[in-house]
Amino acid sequence: MRRFAADRARRAVAASLRAAASRSGAPSPLVPAPRHPAHPVGAAAMAAAAMARAMSTATKGAPAVSLDTINPKVLKCEYAVRGEIVTHAQNLQQELQKNPESLPFDEILYCNIGNPQSLGQQPVTYFREVLSLCDHPALLDKSETHALYSSDAIERAWQILEKIPGRATGAYSHSQGIKGLRDEIAAGIAARDGFHASGDNIFLTDGASPAVHMMMQLLISSEKDGILCPIPQYPLYSASIALHGGSLVPYFLDEETGWGLEVDELKKQLEEARSKGITVRALVVINPGNPTGQVLSEENQKKIVEFCKNEGLVLLADEVYQENIYVEDKQFHSFKKVARSLGYTDDDLPLVSFQSVSKGYYGECGKRGGYMEITGFSPEVREQIYKVASVNLCSNVSGQILASLVMNPPKAGDESFESFMVEKDGILSSLARRAKALEEAFNSLEGITCNKAEGAMYLFPRLHLPQKAIGAAQAAGTAPDAYYAKRLLEATGIVVVPGSGFGQVPGTWHFRCTILPQEDKIPAIISRFKEFHEKFMDEYRD
Amino acid sequence: MRRFAADRARRAVAASLRAAASRSGAPSPLVPAPRHPAHPVGAAAMAAAAMARAMSTATKGAPAVSLDTINPKVLKCEYAVRGEIVTHAQNLQQELQKNPESLPFDEILYCNIGNPQSLGQQPVTYFREVLSLCDHPALLDKSETHALYSSDAIERAWQILEKIPGRATGAYSHSQGIKGLRDEIAAGIAARDGFHASGDNIFLTDGASPAVHMMMQLLISSEKDGILCPIPQYPLYSASIALHGGSLVPYFLDEETGWGLEVDELKKQLEEARSKGITVRALVVINPGNPTGQVLSEENQKKIVEFCKNEGLVLLADEVYQENIYVEDKQFHSFKKVARSLGYTDDDLPLVSFQSVSKGYYGECGKRGGYMEITGFSPEVREQIYKVASVNLCSNVSGQILASLVMNPPKAGDESFESFMVEKDGILSSLARRAKALEEAFNSLEGITCNKAEGAMYLFPRLHLPQKAIGAAQAAGTAPDAYYAKRLLEATGIVVVPGSGFGQVPGTWHFRCTILPQEDKIPAIISRFKEFHEKFMDEYRD
Repeated sequence: MRRFAADRARRAVAASLRAAASRSGAPSPLVPAPRHPAHPVGAAAMAAAAMARAMSTATKGAPAVSLDTINPKVLKCEYAVRGEIVTHAQNLQQELQKNPESLPFDEILYCNIGNPQSLGQQPVTYFREVLSLCDHPALLDKSETHALYSSDAIERAWQILEKIPGRATGAYSHSQGIKGLRDEIAAGIAARDGFHASGDNIFLTDGASPAVHMMMQLLISSEKDGILCPIPQYPLYSASIALHGGSLVPYFLDEETGWGLEVDELKKQLEEARSKGITVRALVVINPGNPTGQVLSEENQKKIVEFCKNEGLVLLADEVYQENIYVEDKQFHSFKKVARSLGYTDDDLPLVSFQSVSKGYYGECGKRGGYMEITGFSPEVREQIYKVASVNLCSNVSGQILASLVMNPPKAGDESFESFMVEKDGILSSLARRAKALEEAFNSLEGITCNKAEGAMYLFPRLHLPQKAIGAAQAAGTAPDAYYAKRLLEATGIVVVPGSGFGQVPGTWHFRCTILPQEDKIPAIISRFKEFHEKFMDEYRD
Repeated sequence: MRRFAADRARRAVAASLRAAASRSGAPSPLVPAPRHPAHPVGAAAMAAAAMARAMSTATKGAPAVSLDTINPKVLKCEYAVRGEIVTHAQNLQQELQKNPESLPFDEILYCNIGNPQSLGQQPVTYFREVLSLCDHPALLDKSETHALYSSDAIERAWQILEKIPGRATGAYSHSQGIKGLRDEIAAGIAARDGFHASGDNIFLTDGASPAVHMMMQLLISSEKDGILCPIPQYPLYSASIALHGGSLVPYFLDEETGWGLEVDELKKQLEEARSKGITVRALVVINPGNPTGQVLSEENQKKIVEFCKNEGLVLLADEVYQENIYVEDKQFHSFKKVARSLGYTDDDLPLVSFQSVSKGYYGECGKRGGYMEITGFSPEVREQIYKVASVNLCSNVSGQILASLVMNPPKAGDESFESFMVEKDGILSSLARRAKALEEAFNSLEGITCNKAEGAMYLFPRLHLPQKAIGAAQAAGTAPDAYYAKRLLEATGIVVVPGSGFGQVPGTWHFRCTILPQEDKIPAIISRFKEFHEKFMDEYRD
């Protein structure tokens, strides 16, 4: 009887959460606000929680923690980049290790995540030399060290240690990060933008994710607080909004115009959210785009800045792919530079720029370095941000050092400069070639169209699936793009993330594929993919 | 007019939050539940938020982000370890740099935080050798490396790299951490406890703080969810509960019996919370204690385990000071070992043990390594914990490596073993001497009583202040212990944290002081402290 009641409660919660997801603007699969009268995401979840709690009192003696009793916001959160398909891939990998002949491929190719070094990209030597020296400063006093490390790396390690109180890389730093490193990052930002930047505005974080969570925590009080997010979006945003109990207010990027970001669409969605009683607090823009790979034009960015200024929104600028641009006619402009070039100051616009050491040409995901630069917040609000940062004491010091290195890499004349540039240019030009090869391959196939990856690390091809394939997916109880991704994995070992994990215009289907496999593997990947896709289309052609 | 309305709203929120804090069980200053009819912590905060929102609609056109519009849970959160007194100290330090003669001391001594390397403790050589090699694996192929690194550190770096897919220390790892390192940590736990441990139960995190937040996020849905916390407590717990919108249910440690933890007190507070409609989800125990330094007896721990088992509570065991024991007659027993020795299995009790590389003899705070070992959770709930971990991708890999090193340090026979043991024993025995010297000094003074630091890194002396001093504090608008700490700082440069930051029995006053200044500085610190304290007592003696 008890078990039955608990099961019933669990089903009730699950049903209620599904209903909440389908009514809301949240992705996977994303239902656009216009078609269904949207409710705030949190409302149904809260009702479900109340129900679950009512049920759980009826099951006293049940385990202390169950799906009925945990925070429903946790239940609601989704993160497809490491979701079901990846778990399936990991299981196949174990199978492959046990029994190499059991599957029609000999390795799993993780194209689900922007994790370059997991696919063989080598770290930048100079950065690693400096990190290695800072980890073991006793080396700096030894003459043998010169046989192993470049002289400018040794010099740089000395400079960095001078900036760390007591040269103690093993001490908690200031909760925003080591002041001297923040100043160095600010100098790098100023050199990039041509506008002043201050180390006082930098918060160093363990990768960009904790910085995003901090801002969501600050801005979201309840489901009445909305955050405008692109669809498709990087699901960190939907996950963080769900965990903090807010409402994701979707705006759709226009696939026809290369994932264009139209201010008219922003306005429409903002008005609609407001009409439902949602106070929209911020706009998230990912530039270069993830999963879409587009690079915004400066003109477009100006309009976005004006929109935020006029509507009183915080502009949350995800700029972690700022070094990843692959086309001649586009370049990266930070939103802060665009705002300043319009004459807007700290008084006009609250603006947060997120940066990470995980992306760029360095791709140091495992180091968990990153920062946010915050401008346009009052001293009292900044104090609150600092307080929350201080609860976690500080981000990891190696990540802090690396963030200062990527924002101030070797300069012409430094001993390492030439070899550094060879490594950097080698990685970036290879990424550009890989992006182009994959894009062309996808576009050559029946039923696939694919926008150019102007930047970032991904392609987001659209699948024009035959009705028969959609029917097969429905029969299997999965979304058509998830069905396709599963079949692709099982046939080729290639792991991609279904578009439903990022959100997409309803009735369209996509997948995200990184451009990160090593270049010499790309031809084989393309031919494996092509073979699978042609068979799949043959199987399901209407 | 707008500004006036905004100011009024801000004051209303502040007053309401103050009222909430004084009515609730939250610390700083903590009012015990018995004296005042307690309301859930969150209720008044939510009322304040509603009020603030109502006011802020009256101030349309105000800045996009203000204290009126941010998440009231953020406003409510407090973290005294890096609070007002530390900001004041940092300002004095800047003054000192500009004008060294301006103050009656020549350096600021940060005894506010358990940050050993900031006060001159040297990192353990072997650990740093391994980290340095793993950061720059190219070194491992070079013969010159043997001139700089011990051979077992080189061997260990090879072993670690073998455990990392593709030897890529720069790749995101599995979201729980690298499997091979988790297995190594589990082996270390099993060796420590004499009971089985599994790498599948380990979640590696950036220090212990994110692990604590993850559990609070999982367990707390609203202010109706309570977490039993010791008073005094480490304010990470009160901060995390506030940020997640739950209710801190205080239980008081008994200063008279050396900060004893009585199960009767737990029961009393649990019943009282339940009578107010709060569902208590978990019990936090900090052992060895922070800020109190006591080490629980195994008998006491057994009773605590039974209590959690009988009451259906999750046991959240903060065991980050497990290596810091300074008295002959006490030793560390993990709660998992105690539970297993009582015959309890995974089916009986959800139990989380937090560990960190920031403490122990290693004190590697800046590396942000740590883990939680979770047992007794259902597969479905574990999946939810994994999902939340996956949103942040992984903890920093250097921290992961270090966590595996501290749980599996050099063994007898290894090249580095002897020098490692000299470093380890040197640090721990010096800490024991410092704890004793400071305790004796405090106890020798008029109006101070101080329990022994059996473990951890702190003393928490009680101040028996004259009425006149309490009156002076009231006149200055601060708590008496905060007043004392400020005067101490301004007279001596010594930074301690007022007891109100941790919670204390109302009407009693304390401060937390680390035992971490280098040993050769202790006599001077004691005499500076003594001189200040005697003058203070002379000034205010009734």
